[in-house]
Amino acid sequence: MTPPLTREALLQRDRDDPLAARRHAFTLPEGVIYLDGNSLGALVASVPARIEHAVRDEWGRGLIRSWNDAGWYPAPQRIGAAVSRLVGAQPHEVVACDSTSVNLFKVLVAALRLRPGRRVIVGELGNFPTDMYVASGVAQLMGAELRCVEPEAVEAAIAEAGEALAVVTLTQVNYKTGRLHDMARITAAAHRVGGLACWDLAHSAGTLPVRLNDCDADFAVGCGYKYLNGGPGAPAFVFVAQRHLAALDQPIAGWHGHARPFDFAHDYVAHAGIERMLVGTAPQLAMIALEEALTVFDGVDLQQLRRKGSELGDAFIALVDQELAGRGFGLASPRDAEQRGSQVSLTHPHGYAIMQALIARGVIGDFRAPDILRFGFAGLYVRHVDVWDAVAALKAVMDTREWDQPAFTMRKAVT
Amino acid sequence: MTPPLTREALLQRDRDDPLAARRHAFTLPEGVIYLDGNSLGALVASVPARIEHAVRDEWGRGLIRSWNDAGWYPAPQRIGAAVSRLVGAQPHEVVACDSTSVNLFKVLVAALRLRPGRRVIVGELGNFPTDMYVASGVAQLMGAELRCVEPEAVEAAIAEAGEALAVVTLTQVNYKTGRLHDMARITAAAHRVGGLACWDLAHSAGTLPVRLNDCDADFAVGCGYKYLNGGPGAPAFVFVAQRHLAALDQPIAGWHGHARPFDFAHDYVAHAGIERMLVGTAPQLAMIALEEALTVFDGVDLQQLRRKGSELGDAFIALVDQELAGRGFGLASPRDAEQRGSQVSLTHPHGYAIMQALIARGVIGDFRAPDILRFGFAGLYVRHVDVWDAVAALKAVMDTREWDQPAFTMRKAVT
Repeated sequence: MTPPLTREALLQRDRDDPLAARRHAFTLPEGVIYLDGNSLGALVASVPARIEHAVRDEWGRGLIRSWNDAGWYPAPQRIGAAVSRLVGAQPHEVVACDSTSVNLFKVLVAALRLRPGRRVIVGELGNFPTDMYVASGVAQLMGAELRCVEPEAVEAAIAEAGEALAVVTLTQVNYKTGRLHDMARITAAAHRVGGLACWDLAHSAGTLPVRLNDCDADFAVGCGYKYLNGGPGAPAFVFVAQRHLAALDQPIAGWHGHARPFDFAHDYVAHAGIERMLVGTAPQLAMIALEEALTVFDGVDLQQLRRKGSELGDAFIALVDQELAGRGFGLASPRDAEQRGSQVSLTHPHGYAIMQALIARGVIGDFRAPDILRFGFAGLYVRHVDVWDAVAALKAVMDTREWDQPAFTMRKAVT
Repeated sequence: MTPPLTREALLQRDRDDPLAARRHAFTLPEGVIYLDGNSLGALVASVPARIEHAVRDEWGRGLIRSWNDAGWYPAPQRIGAAVSRLVGAQPHEVVACDSTSVNLFKVLVAALRLRPGRRVIVGELGNFPTDMYVASGVAQLMGAELRCVEPEAVEAAIAEAGEALAVVTLTQVNYKTGRLHDMARITAAAHRVGGLACWDLAHSAGTLPVRLNDCDADFAVGCGYKYLNGGPGAPAFVFVAQRHLAALDQPIAGWHGHARPFDFAHDYVAHAGIERMLVGTAPQLAMIALEEALTVFDGVDLQQLRRKGSELGDAFIALVDQELAGRGFGLASPRDAEQRGSQVSLTHPHGYAIMQALIARGVIGDFRAPDILRFGFAGLYVRHVDVWDAVAALKAVMDTREWDQPAFTMRKAVT
């Protein structure tokens, strides 16, 4: 039998943690344990000064000249290259632009065009809703059929679709449960029947070593504001495998996707490279925040980061078992860290109010309807001891029933 | 005959200008005359502190809680309402989101769906390229036909399309020439044959009183970073006339367009209001910059702003005639201010190098291939005397031939 986990043991893990110092690269508020970096990443300490420079000097003093002089124009490509290392892609296969949803729209239409005559999109029940909404909208637009199945049934659905499969669209790590798909295996299954695979990396990029090219993935989209710490609503990114770039025909033809945007030619000629995924003018302030935030990954070993995320999650599960037994919590995430991203989700019938009470105590996770309490473990700034303190706070919230008051039970717009 | 215009006369106009004080709400660099607010608006003085607060406090300290507590979540609607006054719409008909190009894509697909069986999109040759690229992409996607004609031939093309017309898509003020379309007349022509009208307000919103509802316009899109001063790549906006909202079916179905996004339901149900134009998570830092910048319009009489913009342009044309005769310049803009937005464009075979030399002298306009020098007159911060000084600088550039050196003749990526 495993001996009980102690706070001292977790403090010792922090002392031994090779990533411990990286926490100092972040500005975290006093008295807060932040376990919601999977929803909005924490502020990288160097970002405020970088943004201030961008606003006061680049915009205020440089004005229009900064498109050239401050390097604004190629920011989407530079950021794409910075992200590429985190997702196992080549630098010229990734670009930062638009939102994850808009990028998924572009990619799915392009995928259907790369597979004319094939009309099935396979998706996953329980995937993040926007992915399903976008896929459903694309299916309607293109006369395709979206088939959503349980995560365990994806491979069977691919096989069943067979030569009708155009593309399978999945999120690598499920937003609710943290369940991790086998990217290599599912991509291979799609390829076996001649289809394509598109991966949403919203909950995996920046917390585990995504291996897009090793897995032979065709497309990916991802989010800049979760584990990449790019700030609220940061630009998203999109990956297109090099082999598809030349033929890729995405539907939103904007001037920044043009081969020569500043020729102002009447006819659209798509850029030869990943730039063809661009549409309008890049939101520079948001781009600059994301670019600066990404410097926090410089020198970070992604295997080490992954290991720490797993350990934090394992410790959390162990402590829930050890400290919270009989209080009505269920585990919504895989117990095996290999099957899980860097988050652990619990269920509880009073989940909403419990999370509000926990936040009031300075332990910030989030709630997802109907009954999920999510805890994200961003290894760059979450400490091992934070896991102990978070579970202790949760125990206190339960044992005092402090969640059971109107301030916590009344729903806000966003949680 | 009109007596020659003098610098003193322009200084007097500044002394009499009811908008003169508004310039102090901007931070403009010393020694610069900024005539490119039609490409990137100047920095509103209160923006840096507002952004710093958003970064350090709302993001850094508030973290995920700021989606509720700092009012991030409804920012697109609040900004839409602030823009609505500038474009003659109701507050709930406008929302800020995405880029102008992405918004145009959404609107044009939705327009074709509102007019099933009609398959002609009428556009304008010489419109800003992204508008034509997007319209062309939509035509390809939807099996429609894009007919682009000269600006003078738009009404004839509408009549010719007749019952086949789905939508006419035009920019109210042409980016190159500053030519102003008659929104009421063209919209009425489209309606006469049962079609719809979509207006791009990139070069009109924030500099002249746009009258969307007075003109019975169906849709509009516009840009946050030109006359609205929202910062480089600021979020765009989109207008949908209330009568179309209930039936509007835009193709990029993202979670922020859902009736109840935080239910995380599997099926997409479009929001009843303008929110159905939203897709992904709003880029908050960019939203906040735009929202703060829009406060500079508080109390501004748009008729007065329009009058000043016209006067600045008239003075510029008069001075080009008076001071620059015989130096190879042509006028690319309408001479009549009623037919023109707040910009004046000149042509010159050495336009690129001349503009670079002029910028080196601190007079910032821009160049548009092949031979256009653009000068924008943002009445909130451009002074009457700036027009004199800009033309004097241009005269000096020509008379010294200082444009004719490699530093100015070699092209940069963006101009």
